Amino acid sequence: MSDAPTTRRDEALALLARLEPEAPAKVARNLDDFDADAVEILLGFAFADVVARDGLDIRTREMLTVAMLGAMGTAQGQLEFHLRAALNTGVTREEVVEIVLQVAVYAGIPAAMNAMSAAKAAFRAQEAV
Amino acid sequence: MSDAPTTRRDEALALLARLEPEAPAKVARNLDDFDADAVEILLGFAFADVVARDGLDIRTREMLTVAMLGAMGTAQGQLEFHLRAALNTGVTREEVVEIVLQVAVYAGIPAAMNAMSAAKAAFRAQEAV
Amino acid sequence: MSDAPTTRRDEALALLARLEPEAPAKVARNLDDFDADAVEILLGFAFADVVARDGLDIRTREMLTVAMLGAMGTAQGQLEFHLRAALNTGVTREEVVEIVLQVAVYAGIPAAMNAMSAAKAAFRAQEAV
Amino acid sequence: MSDAPTTRRDEALALLARLEPEAPAKVARNLDDFDADAVEILLGFAFADVVARDGLDIRTREMLTVAMLGAMGTAQGQLEFHLRAALNTGVTREEVVEIVLQVAVYAGIPAAMNAMSAAKAAFRAQEAV
Amino acid sequence: MSDAPTTRRDEALALLARLEPEAPAKVARNLDDFDADAVEILLGFAFADVVARDGLDIRTREMLTVAMLGAMGTAQGQLEFHLRAALNTGVTREEVVEIVLQVAVYAGIPAAMNAMSAAKAAFRAQEAV
Amino acid sequence: MSDAPTTRRDEALALLARLEPEAPAKVARNLDDFDADAVEILLGFAFADVVARDGLDIRTREMLTVAMLGAMGTAQGQLEFHLRAALNTGVTREEVVEIVLQVAVYAGIPAAMNAMSAAKAAFRAQEAV
Repeated sequence: MSDAPTTRRDEALALLARLEPEAPAKVARNLDDFDADAVEILLGFAFADVVARDGLDIRTREMLTVAMLGAMGTAQGQLEFHLRAALNTGVTREEVVEIVLQVAVYAGIPAAMNAMSAAKAAFRAQEAV
Repeated sequence: MSDAPTTRRDEALALLARLEPEAPAKVARNLDDFDADAVEILLGFAFADVVARDGLDIRTREMLTVAMLGAMGTAQGQLEFHLRAALNTGVTREEVVEIVLQVAVYAGIPAAMNAMSAAKAAFRAQEAV
Repeated sequence: MSDAPTTRRDEALALLARLEPEAPAKVARNLDDFDADAVEILLGFAFADVVARDGLDIRTREMLTVAMLGAMGTAQGQLEFHLRAALNTGVTREEVVEIVLQVAVYAGIPAAMNAMSAAKAAFRAQEAV
Repeated sequence: MSDAPTTRRDEALALLARLEPEAPAKVARNLDDFDADAVEILLGFAFADVVARDGLDIRTREMLTVAMLGAMGTAQGQLEFHLRAALNTGVTREEVVEIVLQVAVYAGIPAAMNAMSAAKAAFRAQEAV
Repeated sequence: MSDAPTTRRDEALALLARLEPEAPAKVARNLDDFDADAVEILLGFAFADVVARDGLDIRTREMLTVAMLGAMGTAQGQLEFHLRAALNTGVTREEVVEIVLQVAVYAGIPAAMNAMSAAKAAFRAQEAV
Repeated sequence: MSDAPTTRRDEALALLARLEPEAPAKVARNLDDFDADAVEILLGFAFADVVARDGLDIRTREMLTVAMLGAMGTAQGQLEFHLRAALNTGVTREEVVEIVLQVAVYAGIPAAMNAMSAAKAAFRAQEAV
């Protein structure tokens, strides 16, 4: 960041970098390729407007995101990303196990099984680094 | 609890009492009236087997539950209950606001609006005590 | 029914009458009031084309419907209707209890709690007759 | 709009007024009462960043919103609001009927029945004006 | 089509051909292989009874379908098909971008990201022709 | 089962073996690898506490599970497993076809199309044995 005023785009990508260092380049390219405003609109809302707020630490926020995506069951790839982000922001594997078990209570066993698969993939990715 | 061996039913209801003091009597009656095993099977799984585990504190667990129910959008009454339980276990109103905003990111604005309504009902219930 | 050829509308309403005797008049009026073709299109598909088929008996079909609506959690009123229809087509209360417990396994405890509420309402309606 | 710099909040509420004249006052009060930033974050994203864009006219956008909320089935109150907004922005009752029937194809008969109920409520509200 | 009376099956497949010329052969074979009545029951309902109706043009209908499938998030393959169908029936890429952004508002960022992936696949398929 | 006290883990795996002979070894390894308690908590709840109950025969239970997973649309892999389990516990292919058609009524055509794909995969797996 320079002295130049920080844009929502910059803020969003800076937050995304905290979740996974290589994510901003990849995600921004993916979105820019779709629409010039998509990064600012979608990631600006998600990461500059909401997730960057002070009221909750990033570690707790990632736990919430993992729980939500696990319960919804409609975005397996993004669940894997946020499980890696959870580990990257200080959530322990033991805590991930607890979240997966709690997903079973509120969204059923199949949702928990899918979350477990995503968690294992995130654990393996962490070991591969 | 006495010296008598604690059953899963007892364990589940003890955990439920931590969420809301008047809940065990009400919920147990509601379930017993449906099936003699329902408390043990459903609440035993939820509260004795999972939520009572050590790996996450109850306050964090209630935050996760609020996020999941808010994102799923299919259990407004239980979302209100768990918002009261969140407040009862130490989650602040400011944190509830953050969770609601984060629900908007991952499940959309209507889900967040419904979660906001439930949160306001929980805030009012807290004031009425 | 007369000697006249049976239409899909007639077939659909005849099946609906097996689920609840008073349903055809109420549902048809509700749909006719919306669009002249709605009964044939929506109920014709549901009840003449699918539910009236021979491959499964109506009692089993109502069990499946209760399970699906319980798991989806987005149509509480229709879940109550199909619980009454299940009882009307020979599903026992004990079997309803089992379906509700199985909903908990596949869709989570809140879905099962909502299904239990609908089941109790259906039980009460049956007693009120 | 005056010479004064327009904020995202103002832009969002201006768009909301096109959907229903009385909505901005009611919705803003509801959100402000929850969190000072909620209008800008939630409505700013929804109505200033996305719905106000030129790429689709507001009438088509409301049709899309009605279809989405009908298919999701988790926000009946907001579905009713957007059905009124659809009528207010030029969608005809006949088109609403078509959308409801199309919801049945992609999300099932119960979703369509719930959308029909919301549509009828919106039709009645329109007549009551 | 000949002088012979048109069946619902024929009508459904004729509509499907408007969405994608090669679809009828592929989809019919896929369904016939499952059950002899499946094309008439499922596609007859979808395409002969509903989507072929006059009340909305096919281009608008495909926009609605894309929005619904994007918001529901449970049928990625069919979302891709309907994005191709949308392009084939006159929806522009710019309009697809708008629909994807609107999915974010009503169903959350992950749903929009998945819809964006499907949209890109449809854009590539269009270029490959 | 021997004279030794049967644990919930044993009970759960015994039930799972009735669904598919090779499942217990595979599923237990998958879960044990994640958390030492996961088999007992998740499978104990699903298969020892609920599915093993007397109130419904296993064949009917698998029909219900197939219908629920088909309607929810969020666990395609587990839907395939339970379709194989349905065939293994006496559900006929003709009955599977009926369930898939009924999924279309209550959850929409795309859900049914996905369930049909899973059903075909289960049919092929059965033939490959």
